[in-house]
Amino acid sequence: MAVRFELLKESSECNARLGKLYTPHGVIETPIFMPVGTRATVKAMTPEEVKDLGAQIILSNTYHLYLKPGHKLIEEAGGLHKFMNWDKPILTDSGGFQVFSLGKLRKISEEGVEFRSHIDGSKHFISPEKSIEIQNSLGSDIMMALDECTPYPSDYEYTKESLERTTRWAKRCKEYHKDWDRQALFGIVQGGMYKDLREQSIKEITDLDLPGYAIGGLSVGEPKELYRDMLSFTAPKLPKNKARYLMGVGSPDYLFDAVISGIDMADCVLPTRIARNGTVLTSHGKLVIKNAEYKRDFGKLDPECDCYTCKNYSRAYIRHLFNVDEILAARLATIHNLYFLIKLMENIRTAIKEDRLLEYREQFYKKYGYI
Amino acid sequence: MAVRFELLKESSECNARLGKLYTPHGVIETPIFMPVGTRATVKAMTPEEVKDLGAQIILSNTYHLYLKPGHKLIEEAGGLHKFMNWDKPILTDSGGFQVFSLGKLRKISEEGVEFRSHIDGSKHFISPEKSIEIQNSLGSDIMMALDECTPYPSDYEYTKESLERTTRWAKRCKEYHKDWDRQALFGIVQGGMYKDLREQSIKEITDLDLPGYAIGGLSVGEPKELYRDMLSFTAPKLPKNKARYLMGVGSPDYLFDAVISGIDMADCVLPTRIARNGTVLTSHGKLVIKNAEYKRDFGKLDPECDCYTCKNYSRAYIRHLFNVDEILAARLATIHNLYFLIKLMENIRTAIKEDRLLEYREQFYKKYGYI
Repeated sequence: MAVRFELLKESSECNARLGKLYTPHGVIETPIFMPVGTRATVKAMTPEEVKDLGAQIILSNTYHLYLKPGHKLIEEAGGLHKFMNWDKPILTDSGGFQVFSLGKLRKISEEGVEFRSHIDGSKHFISPEKSIEIQNSLGSDIMMALDECTPYPSDYEYTKESLERTTRWAKRCKEYHKDWDRQALFGIVQGGMYKDLREQSIKEITDLDLPGYAIGGLSVGEPKELYRDMLSFTAPKLPKNKARYLMGVGSPDYLFDAVISGIDMADCVLPTRIARNGTVLTSHGKLVIKNAEYKRDFGKLDPECDCYTCKNYSRAYIRHLFNVDEILAARLATIHNLYFLIKLMENIRTAIKEDRLLEYREQFYKKYGYI
Repeated sequence: MAVRFELLKESSECNARLGKLYTPHGVIETPIFMPVGTRATVKAMTPEEVKDLGAQIILSNTYHLYLKPGHKLIEEAGGLHKFMNWDKPILTDSGGFQVFSLGKLRKISEEGVEFRSHIDGSKHFISPEKSIEIQNSLGSDIMMALDECTPYPSDYEYTKESLERTTRWAKRCKEYHKDWDRQALFGIVQGGMYKDLREQSIKEITDLDLPGYAIGGLSVGEPKELYRDMLSFTAPKLPKNKARYLMGVGSPDYLFDAVISGIDMADCVLPTRIARNGTVLTSHGKLVIKNAEYKRDFGKLDPECDCYTCKNYSRAYIRHLFNVDEILAARLATIHNLYFLIKLMENIRTAIKEDRLLEYREQFYKKYGYI
């Protein structure tokens, strides 16, 4: 079944919207946060645990899976869903973001990007066609077109050149992809911090008439005000009847801004990464559980949370686990952080339904702290 | 409810026995393998997972918990069961084994052992009374008396001196402990590789009339034949109506020998430790999952296993997880290895019931390989 987006409701207060995204592996209620499973596993979690938290879709990384264990091996295994035992939707990125993050290890041309593996230095080449070929092997429900995520800051000239190449690459991705019932392709809008370039990119990318569009090149180190400005300028200009995906955003405040600007999907390694370092998200703000003040604190991580971790373990216990470097520490913190964001998005969906999203945001920040 | 052992059946073929061990946190069917949760967690596992595998009791380590997070903190938390969210029986060792393993960092006297922490070098002193005080704080169902595990090899003179001190320490532990309804105390038989010293130790320790007895100082590096000889000499001499616990044994072959000699309980870090290094126990012997031969092997770890790991994941996937150092690798391998040993003991209990333990052992070795 081809991926399609159904718009259920638009907020009367802001650009937020409720929707349903239909995919070959199930229907997703939006707006949604997508946990990241970089190497065919959401770090520290089993797929059942991720599902039990309420996650409806996960993201996996083409670059990492291409290098290890290799996309052909995953294809032989029956595709990524089967390989990793996850039967709900999967979105894969194009590999571009990681390749461009390699800095000096990569060389860009019209044809694609040549790069050296961060693991063993071996030479590789990813073209738009190659990215789709890899993602076809993985069998994700939603593939992303190869793009260049222009770094911040970038000058006008380079940003324009780059976004135009991104458009040409998106076309090549679309042409190369065949089985649209099995896998969808989303295009990515670039254009850096230049509004006219964002407009140009939106025009060019949406001309391709794809089932969904992402905004790339935001939340890449720019000041928060600039992020908010560019986001609220760009997101509402995307077609209403297509899914809108903001790449790489996962802190509560950035997610609120995203939803309020009309974003349907977002992903980030933030909740799982900070969890493994012992930082947890709570309704009263972030908490660094290793701190001495929690040594004899027998309360929950978050007094208002009813996740598995909060129902069964104390701050003192979790602090102890981090102190002695136990695997269970990462597990319990990851469960809690993912639950926090998934629950937040659930509350956000309810608030949109009841036309009280701005009020809910205010209530949230009052406890969480204004950022 | 005071801990007590009920002998249900003696094998007609060998010294193996079936029993029930009643504890304040539930009844244990013996013979049993006890997973180790050194620092108040069975490494990589949640308590629910350990329980779901069929584990009836776990072991935790007094030395480690005394240093971090400290037994007083665990007492404040409501005891070890509550602290770690495990409501089934717990056995704690005395701390002696770890202290004696410190080598030059410890100094033994009649009063007890002075040692330096392996973590920060701080000075500590554990006496028999202190060991019980700590274990009282932890609130384990079964405590172990402080003993010296004589290393292999040790000369006759030293072994004799040491076992006699172990007896005096066991007496002091018994005298110091008060609430026998809440916690039981097991004594430990030493005597190294000298049969007359083992007999002397059995005599002295069982004179204390405790609810259970352990055999210490075996499986400490001696040749396997010597282990089997000493074990089959010692175990049957322990009182029939008391639980018999062999410390530090967890490989299938050592467990078979233990049960056949009349042992009811055993523990070892082996299954969990080798799991984290990527070695798994299967009905066809050990398997090092990282090996290249499993790269494209889409079969189960063990074709005859129905654990969570084997039901859902391929060798190729688990190998990939180990290769990229994912936490899930340790989790899946640990689940499998613990299940393997717990299931083995379940099969052993059934075989004893049906008087075909020796036949079952033969069947097992035929596939597993003779060791």
